[in-house]
Amino acid sequence: MFSSQTYQDRRAVLKGNVANGILLFLGNIENPVNFEHNPYYFRQDSTFLYYFGIQEPRIAAIIDIEENKTIIFGDELSIDDIVWMGRQETLKEKSLKAGVQETLPYAELYKYIQKAQSAGRKVHYLPPYQPSNKILLGDLLETRITELQPSVEFIKAIVKQRSIKEAQEIVQIEEAINVSNEMHLLAMRIARPRVKEYEIANAIQHLAADQECQMSYPPIVTINGGILHNHYRLNTLKSGDLFLNDSGAETSMGYAGDLTRTFPVDNTFTTKQKEMYEVVLNAFNNAQQLLKPGTKFKDIHLRASQYLVEGLIDLGLMKGNPEEAVKNHAHALFFQCGLGHMMGLDVHDMEDLGEQYIGYTEAEPKDTKTFGLKSLRLGKTLETGFVLTVEPGIYMIPELIDMWQAENKNAEFINYDKVNEYRNFGGVRVEDDFLITNDGYRLLGNGLIKTVEEIEDYRTQHLA
Amino acid sequence: MFSSQTYQDRRAVLKGNVANGILLFLGNIENPVNFEHNPYYFRQDSTFLYYFGIQEPRIAAIIDIEENKTIIFGDELSIDDIVWMGRQETLKEKSLKAGVQETLPYAELYKYIQKAQSAGRKVHYLPPYQPSNKILLGDLLETRITELQPSVEFIKAIVKQRSIKEAQEIVQIEEAINVSNEMHLLAMRIARPRVKEYEIANAIQHLAADQECQMSYPPIVTINGGILHNHYRLNTLKSGDLFLNDSGAETSMGYAGDLTRTFPVDNTFTTKQKEMYEVVLNAFNNAQQLLKPGTKFKDIHLRASQYLVEGLIDLGLMKGNPEEAVKNHAHALFFQCGLGHMMGLDVHDMEDLGEQYIGYTEAEPKDTKTFGLKSLRLGKTLETGFVLTVEPGIYMIPELIDMWQAENKNAEFINYDKVNEYRNFGGVRVEDDFLITNDGYRLLGNGLIKTVEEIEDYRTQHLA
Repeated sequence: MFSSQTYQDRRAVLKGNVANGILLFLGNIENPVNFEHNPYYFRQDSTFLYYFGIQEPRIAAIIDIEENKTIIFGDELSIDDIVWMGRQETLKEKSLKAGVQETLPYAELYKYIQKAQSAGRKVHYLPPYQPSNKILLGDLLETRITELQPSVEFIKAIVKQRSIKEAQEIVQIEEAINVSNEMHLLAMRIARPRVKEYEIANAIQHLAADQECQMSYPPIVTINGGILHNHYRLNTLKSGDLFLNDSGAETSMGYAGDLTRTFPVDNTFTTKQKEMYEVVLNAFNNAQQLLKPGTKFKDIHLRASQYLVEGLIDLGLMKGNPEEAVKNHAHALFFQCGLGHMMGLDVHDMEDLGEQYIGYTEAEPKDTKTFGLKSLRLGKTLETGFVLTVEPGIYMIPELIDMWQAENKNAEFINYDKVNEYRNFGGVRVEDDFLITNDGYRLLGNGLIKTVEEIEDYRTQHLA
Repeated sequence: MFSSQTYQDRRAVLKGNVANGILLFLGNIENPVNFEHNPYYFRQDSTFLYYFGIQEPRIAAIIDIEENKTIIFGDELSIDDIVWMGRQETLKEKSLKAGVQETLPYAELYKYIQKAQSAGRKVHYLPPYQPSNKILLGDLLETRITELQPSVEFIKAIVKQRSIKEAQEIVQIEEAINVSNEMHLLAMRIARPRVKEYEIANAIQHLAADQECQMSYPPIVTINGGILHNHYRLNTLKSGDLFLNDSGAETSMGYAGDLTRTFPVDNTFTTKQKEMYEVVLNAFNNAQQLLKPGTKFKDIHLRASQYLVEGLIDLGLMKGNPEEAVKNHAHALFFQCGLGHMMGLDVHDMEDLGEQYIGYTEAEPKDTKTFGLKSLRLGKTLETGFVLTVEPGIYMIPELIDMWQAENKNAEFINYDKVNEYRNFGGVRVEDDFLITNDGYRLLGNGLIKTVEEIEDYRTQHLA
């Protein structure tokens, strides 16, 4: 946990940004795997962590603005529990560490909310993503789950605050990234022909776990990098493959890292792999340079797309005017997704609160229609204190190539014959995490090798 | 998956055991960690696995008894999904492997159930443990979650069938146990002073994952074996500690292993540790001999308890007549929990369906009042084909000792002065998995060392 003052200060700021009513925070439960008492590992809700820091299932909290009260609701262990689970720090003790004096049994939460509602007071709550919290909210508010109305005022106040990272949060995020760096170096040391994808996933997970870290998301460790959401891990690596590793650690306090590297299963890139890799790396390097407060991330995304197009023109896969190609979204045949997203207590920071508030504004909402742009999670103007990923890539997706070619889509920008020579090429992505600073950006963490030369040297040294 | 015939046969048996109506099977979803699209690893519901074998989220199935129909409901991937996730086996193809010809879109499930209900037909469903399935059932049946009425007829038919393991299930269970054996040997090789508990947990999890196994439950790897539900893993092992490892693998088909070994962090047991260990091992060996069809497991539990008492009398912690001590539940100061439980597709097999049906009968229900017996998950008469654990133990729980001593409870059987000398001793458990055979029992798996000599030899050899 951070200091109790941290949580008190954060709550004070939040209170100042919501006019009135009761702010309701629901912690997470231990989700069952195959029966109630066989749970997945526990992960506290990130907003709860941000304002209260307590890692404990089945607790909730309220901030009552008019009454100027903050209460944590939860049940202390009974003597029966202590017999089975041992003595533990009490909820009261934990709450004090979060700067909260008042704790009440969980059942009191129902009474508090019902009393507030009877008095016609506003109860602000967030969009529930855990099914258990959907049920709980339905019960608390005596509302059908499908009719729940999360508070936009509450969401906006949280997004405003959590988007700007504190110095101590940056320390946590860099800790996560440095563990992630080690995970990626380990993968580069052990990936070789005949190894299974899942063996690499297991090894990096083990490394992170030994540093008390979880995975911040299910790792993508694959020789089919062209499949964007690839969690199949049963393939065996073989000579000639490109290996894509998109994985990151999460610290025990909940902060995420998110990195991607792509490298050959052999020690060295083939010419084709190297050329494609350098197109992506060039787009990455140029995009990074554009990061600064006041710049719209959507514009950086489009500029990065143009760098990709220029590279693909050099390789003969695209043609024509690069700027026009991007205007026509022709790059989306190769770069179907977004350049990056916010990162913090969640790898897609605050995604549970709604992408339209985290990545966009009401004045400039997300383009939810255009293929490519509809997958860009972050479009808004950057501010000092934002933490985000930059992750350009090129993905050869046979099904998509066939679809576009059948329509002769963007034929003035795409050399379909040449593209088809690459249809089974796979995918390349390079991803790092950045802080937006007053005068531009700072790469977070100790830095991880990414040029062709660095990767080939490292691989040659360790696979010898 | 097993053969399609297997699933067809199982469903045919089930149909014969329910008089009429529609049997509803709900698969599991991918549970979110901290936002909807960041899920925990997927685990299919065990009953769904047993009758359909399909490992896929967001599917459901029905067996319509009168109409003699079996249908799997789920949505095929759209071309958009294929672009992001790659081509995959279709639900139709997977369903054929389960011997099911008919598949329908998920939305049709609502229509099917609503039509059946309008026609006054009985819809049988199971107790939901996943919050998502509670919501789903509430919606499907237009019933409040708190008013759901799972079908006892359906539960009983399933328990009857799943309790008797098929030969091919035993093969799976033994595969899980053999991986579990390796996990335990690895722990015995790496546990030594200055190692952290979680490092051992991580290492055994890595070993299992490399054999495509999950943990069948969160491992208990602790130097405080006296805490029964101990998932705290931040302690550092030190000379003089006893280390308890209760962990098991689950195969990719979902079958569990569940083993416990206790051993000293040093190469050899102290005299005190050895004496206590041998009391537990003796109870274990004797209990194992009693396993056979027709014997009530509750009686074996009580006999094992008596062996523990006899050992504790020898050590001076208990006194008086052992049989009387057990009748008065005096052993429960040391052995607070049950001797074992059913095991199969769940480590506590079918626990989601209700312990009263799995471990007990209506004629001889569970004793839910008596301390000790109320934690015995299995009490019923054993049958050929049952798979179960045997896991006696002795646990020194300071809080419990103080409670009992304050009341002078069972003072005629307990030497409290001597017990207090052991109050920080911790805990010892020995656990293996058995199949009930026609003429007795068979230890499942290749067998794992458990005598003091075997453990000391192995440790000395590997820690040298």
